[in-house]
Amino acid sequence: MNASPETALDWSDLDRRAVDTARVLAADAVQKVGNGHPGTAMSLAPAAYLLFQKVMRLDPADDQWLGRDRFVLSAGHSSLTQYIQLYLAGQGLELDDVAALRTYGSRTPGHPEYRHTKGIEMTTGPLGQGIASAVGMAYAGRKERGLLDPEAPAGQSPFDHHVFVIASDGDLQEGVSAEASSLAGTQELGNLVVIYDDNHISIEDDTNIAFTEDVLARYAAYGWHTQRVDWTNDGGQYVEDVDALHAAVQAAKAETGKPSIIALRTIIGWPSPNKQDTGAIHGSALGADEVRAVKEVLGFDPEKTFEVTDEVIAHTRGNVAERARAAHEEWDAAYAAWREKNTDAAALLDRLRERALPEGWTSALPTFEGGKAVSTRKASGEVLSALAGTLPELWGGSADLAGSNNTTMKGEESFLPEKRSTKMFPGNIYGRTLHFGIREHAMGSIVNGIAVHGLTRPYGGTFLVFSDYMRPAVRLAALMGAPSTFVWTHDSIGLGEDGPTHQPVEHLTALRAIPGLDVVRPADGAETAQAWRGILERTDRPAGIVLTRQDVPNPVRGDGAADGDTLASAEGVRRGAYVLAEAPGGSPDVILLASGSEVQLALAAREQLAAQDVAARVVSVPCMEWFDEQDDAYREEVLPAAVRARVSVEAGLAMSWRSLVGDAGRSVSLEHYGASGDYKVLYEKFGITAEAVVAAAQESI
Amino acid sequence: MNASPETALDWSDLDRRAVDTARVLAADAVQKVGNGHPGTAMSLAPAAYLLFQKVMRLDPADDQWLGRDRFVLSAGHSSLTQYIQLYLAGQGLELDDVAALRTYGSRTPGHPEYRHTKGIEMTTGPLGQGIASAVGMAYAGRKERGLLDPEAPAGQSPFDHHVFVIASDGDLQEGVSAEASSLAGTQELGNLVVIYDDNHISIEDDTNIAFTEDVLARYAAYGWHTQRVDWTNDGGQYVEDVDALHAAVQAAKAETGKPSIIALRTIIGWPSPNKQDTGAIHGSALGADEVRAVKEVLGFDPEKTFEVTDEVIAHTRGNVAERARAAHEEWDAAYAAWREKNTDAAALLDRLRERALPEGWTSALPTFEGGKAVSTRKASGEVLSALAGTLPELWGGSADLAGSNNTTMKGEESFLPEKRSTKMFPGNIYGRTLHFGIREHAMGSIVNGIAVHGLTRPYGGTFLVFSDYMRPAVRLAALMGAPSTFVWTHDSIGLGEDGPTHQPVEHLTALRAIPGLDVVRPADGAETAQAWRGILERTDRPAGIVLTRQDVPNPVRGDGAADGDTLASAEGVRRGAYVLAEAPGGSPDVILLASGSEVQLALAAREQLAAQDVAARVVSVPCMEWFDEQDDAYREEVLPAAVRARVSVEAGLAMSWRSLVGDAGRSVSLEHYGASGDYKVLYEKFGITAEAVVAAAQESI
Repeated sequence: MNASPETALDWSDLDRRAVDTARVLAADAVQKVGNGHPGTAMSLAPAAYLLFQKVMRLDPADDQWLGRDRFVLSAGHSSLTQYIQLYLAGQGLELDDVAALRTYGSRTPGHPEYRHTKGIEMTTGPLGQGIASAVGMAYAGRKERGLLDPEAPAGQSPFDHHVFVIASDGDLQEGVSAEASSLAGTQELGNLVVIYDDNHISIEDDTNIAFTEDVLARYAAYGWHTQRVDWTNDGGQYVEDVDALHAAVQAAKAETGKPSIIALRTIIGWPSPNKQDTGAIHGSALGADEVRAVKEVLGFDPEKTFEVTDEVIAHTRGNVAERARAAHEEWDAAYAAWREKNTDAAALLDRLRERALPEGWTSALPTFEGGKAVSTRKASGEVLSALAGTLPELWGGSADLAGSNNTTMKGEESFLPEKRSTKMFPGNIYGRTLHFGIREHAMGSIVNGIAVHGLTRPYGGTFLVFSDYMRPAVRLAALMGAPSTFVWTHDSIGLGEDGPTHQPVEHLTALRAIPGLDVVRPADGAETAQAWRGILERTDRPAGIVLTRQDVPNPVRGDGAADGDTLASAEGVRRGAYVLAEAPGGSPDVILLASGSEVQLALAAREQLAAQDVAARVVSVPCMEWFDEQDDAYREEVLPAAVRARVSVEAGLAMSWRSLVGDAGRSVSLEHYGASGDYKVLYEKFGITAEAVVAAAQESI
Repeated sequence: MNASPETALDWSDLDRRAVDTARVLAADAVQKVGNGHPGTAMSLAPAAYLLFQKVMRLDPADDQWLGRDRFVLSAGHSSLTQYIQLYLAGQGLELDDVAALRTYGSRTPGHPEYRHTKGIEMTTGPLGQGIASAVGMAYAGRKERGLLDPEAPAGQSPFDHHVFVIASDGDLQEGVSAEASSLAGTQELGNLVVIYDDNHISIEDDTNIAFTEDVLARYAAYGWHTQRVDWTNDGGQYVEDVDALHAAVQAAKAETGKPSIIALRTIIGWPSPNKQDTGAIHGSALGADEVRAVKEVLGFDPEKTFEVTDEVIAHTRGNVAERARAAHEEWDAAYAAWREKNTDAAALLDRLRERALPEGWTSALPTFEGGKAVSTRKASGEVLSALAGTLPELWGGSADLAGSNNTTMKGEESFLPEKRSTKMFPGNIYGRTLHFGIREHAMGSIVNGIAVHGLTRPYGGTFLVFSDYMRPAVRLAALMGAPSTFVWTHDSIGLGEDGPTHQPVEHLTALRAIPGLDVVRPADGAETAQAWRGILERTDRPAGIVLTRQDVPNPVRGDGAADGDTLASAEGVRRGAYVLAEAPGGSPDVILLASGSEVQLALAAREQLAAQDVAARVVSVPCMEWFDEQDDAYREEVLPAAVRARVSVEAGLAMSWRSLVGDAGRSVSLEHYGASGDYKVLYEKFGITAEAVVAAAQESI
């Protein structure tokens, strides 16, 4: 909602003093803790102040305001840039917090952390992630409008807002930002504004050694609106022309058909007399002498630290509060009018804000005919299509593998400007199917941006082996507790002929290693439906659902617990591991543990062992993390400590199974790379067979 | 060496027939196995044929010829494009190999595999890796010339050659290619020529849904020489104008100051009458009817499969052999003249070709004063500087963290065009210090490209947590057995204030999971020197050396095995694990295992346990992979099976230690994310202390 007319910039002496105060605080804070990044926080203070005090719609009294603009500090190392503005704006941080920078337990850690500090919209620091996820936030803004208020004229919906980003040289060097920026151009994200701190300095000093490209020409090639504001006046007198920057920001906002980037040429660390324009000021404390020098240049008392006058703080907080009051009032009226006219959408919004699932939603989950083989990727596709009507918040796509990942809900349009429609994919700016191109990393970051923006539940798919390409985004999702869902198909040598470059071996282990990520590998159609259920029920953590390319049996199951030769229902999936088949006679000699496509091998081995009078229980383990959440009683029930003979079988490394099988146990696993060939041949050649499980069981007993 | 004058293209009817033969073979091969990627192999056959038959310097009789041009099929899924040219050129593949495509044990796996099939210069398939590593090969070409023949005029050295790449839309969408291409522009790699198959189709069909940027404008922004060849005549009649492509390739070669990209607009799957220009022909068999139709269009017998006339194969193999003979003869003369004039360089070359280390080289390794604390990253930097004179083949740099990673050898110039010199880094096109910018992924791929190009030993550094950004390249190094070395510093919560985004927790586990990668985490200065020794002695696999930010004690050691209270020498590092401190009395009650910065905690715990009359042995475990290589006797000597009381201590996940400590063992580990704060506080708060090791030991006994 952008109804307020733009006015000329009011930039008083008090604003200038407030900006200089921000610089001095940055120098003091880093000096106090002895390490950190003062340079950008100093030279970029006018830009950040402009955004927080004069441009963005925000309300310190309502940090979850739906109408707020989003701010992402992609240059997360310059966390002070954001912390100091949050302090000046009265958004929850106080001077003591600024002084506690980078100390244990403070609200001002080295890099901004989502859900740790109020006002931080996402965790940043790993370069490129901020700008790439901001692209996702801009997607989310458009999508949410489409779900809730699609008919409103542009700029007139309470759901219209902007996403602002401050990005550094490092952000724009990282490939993930290139991937996401290209997509932002394709998507014509007019709600995205990036200020690029073009300061020619990174840790190795002058960027001429590694960053000589024409950045704005590159962004123009992506289809962005580009502007340059040069405070160095092409190497002449350094003048912080805030008016020029403000005009550029207004022009960027006015361009509604393209994302915008403003290259702001600054001198890092300005006005530090001796350390400006060096790599040293990027990432180290200035030293006591230089901090004094900065204060002297700026007319501050060099004997004082953390000096903020009452007048400055009253001005900055008063200004933000007044702007917030006016904006919120105007927005509240529009929002109330919208609610009144759109009762269904309002009810949907209320549910989405709670991240609640609709009552009875699980009845929409499909069932799979017992005895009929199906690949779990196909089953997953059926689950998604079946849920489409019930869960409008669920949307996603693939990194150019839609047909292989089965990520497209049937009959849904693509999230695309209409003019990008192709024969196969009709486009609609409010569509549901996402196309990331061959850009797994940006996919992960964009999905994260959508997830932390709120309201909707995004997913993104690729082959499991290419989870490596998106790993920094997956980790960040886990660190933030963002409900991103990653769909990873072609999950083992079972993909066959594409060979070792495409066959994951170590990936399940490597992903299980990420704290806070659920790795869910269902065994069949029934487990796939329950896997999605378990994932969607959890709203405070990401998950990866790991699926087969090849068909797997979908065995006939009973309705309850395993009993005799009747298999358990798949409900146990949501507990992470469960007894799928009881040992003949009920008292197991050995427990066979398996996940995904190898569960069938455990079941076959159980039968072969029965013929040898060995009673084997089969435990299906779709998600180790969910099993870890269960109480000791349930875990003991599934895996009685007294039964030390255990065998795990999974077409990947044994490492993550080691603690479940114990010293007496064995693992049927794959400890080396795969090969190109028919998958049945590969399973045989590499010894991942029921016979191998039987032999391992005999050894283990 | 480009002494041969360029002549006009000779492109006979027989050449045309050979190209059509390639198309038919591609259709047949995929149809036979039932899956694969025929489309690009068909439409790009003229381009590939042009390179192999008319442009590149290659010799089927000498696949390791130093003077050969390098060819990288970045679009690895189109492996047939390369296999069929290798067959036609007589470079080791026969018709049966083509017919055995994608079957177990064949020389024609789904994607080209390095060291599996002659003529394949690197494994490709994971998109973007090929072009990014080709940039590394172009670096290597310049560097090797600099080492061996720096004074030769441009194009006159036997070490001058080109790197040719065929890249797809997918390659250019991946961020890693963007990173590497930007660096290629900075480096002005005139020896790199990329043909971009601009066919507007990927797996999700028309690329308009996700790839709308102006690719050549982007490459121009990077500083590349760009050309367009449009066989569609802007949507008109499709004409495979090979002359125009040849002229573009010649122009690209003539541009010696910039890398070149030629956007070749093709129609994928041409001339398939019903499936050309679709996503279907990209990645699926054509079906019997369409294969027939293709053969009819091209004048082949639709009843025959794998039809190659004697005339065609005699022509193609004869042509290549004749070109090879002439080129090799000319090159041999130049090479002989070079050897005669440059005896020292020739001796160096002979050593480098063997990947042998010079006799007595280890005497150049530095020693570290016992009792003086030093961070292992600093120790590593000292090792590199100390080796600089002895090992001219060793070179590398950092992804903008040179000062933090300690990757710069003292006094060495940067590998950079002179005009890119900065105050801090003087540039020389034959320099030694690499600057990757904030581009970890391209760094990994470029290091791989240098490593597989041969002769030199490259390394690249970043923070351990950012190994995630480069993981696909690390995996590919391991899969290829390339001797790439990754320097990963800031290896735990020990980095302190930067907080959880920068603190690795799961990374040691996730990297140990990669088959074929050595993860080496030395405990102190002495171990760091031995770690580098062990890494450099291995030439058929990559390694990551994992180093601390913080100082660690460098304890006084003896010269041999551990004895009483005398610590063992660090020689045991190269066996992966060794007894660093023997249990008092010689008979351990418990074994304490540790790596890196936590070895000091194990040593302190040993003393505390001794005071409690518990005899603890300390085993330092710098590299689990090297320990796995040892015979059972050595492993039993270090970790006697009878001693089941064991404790591991590492500031990361316990998962990878589980099999070493066993059911009775305990792990002092970190199973969650870190925090921003002083590292000593973090170790205390998170319970990674000598006291915790003592308590775990008591529990374990």
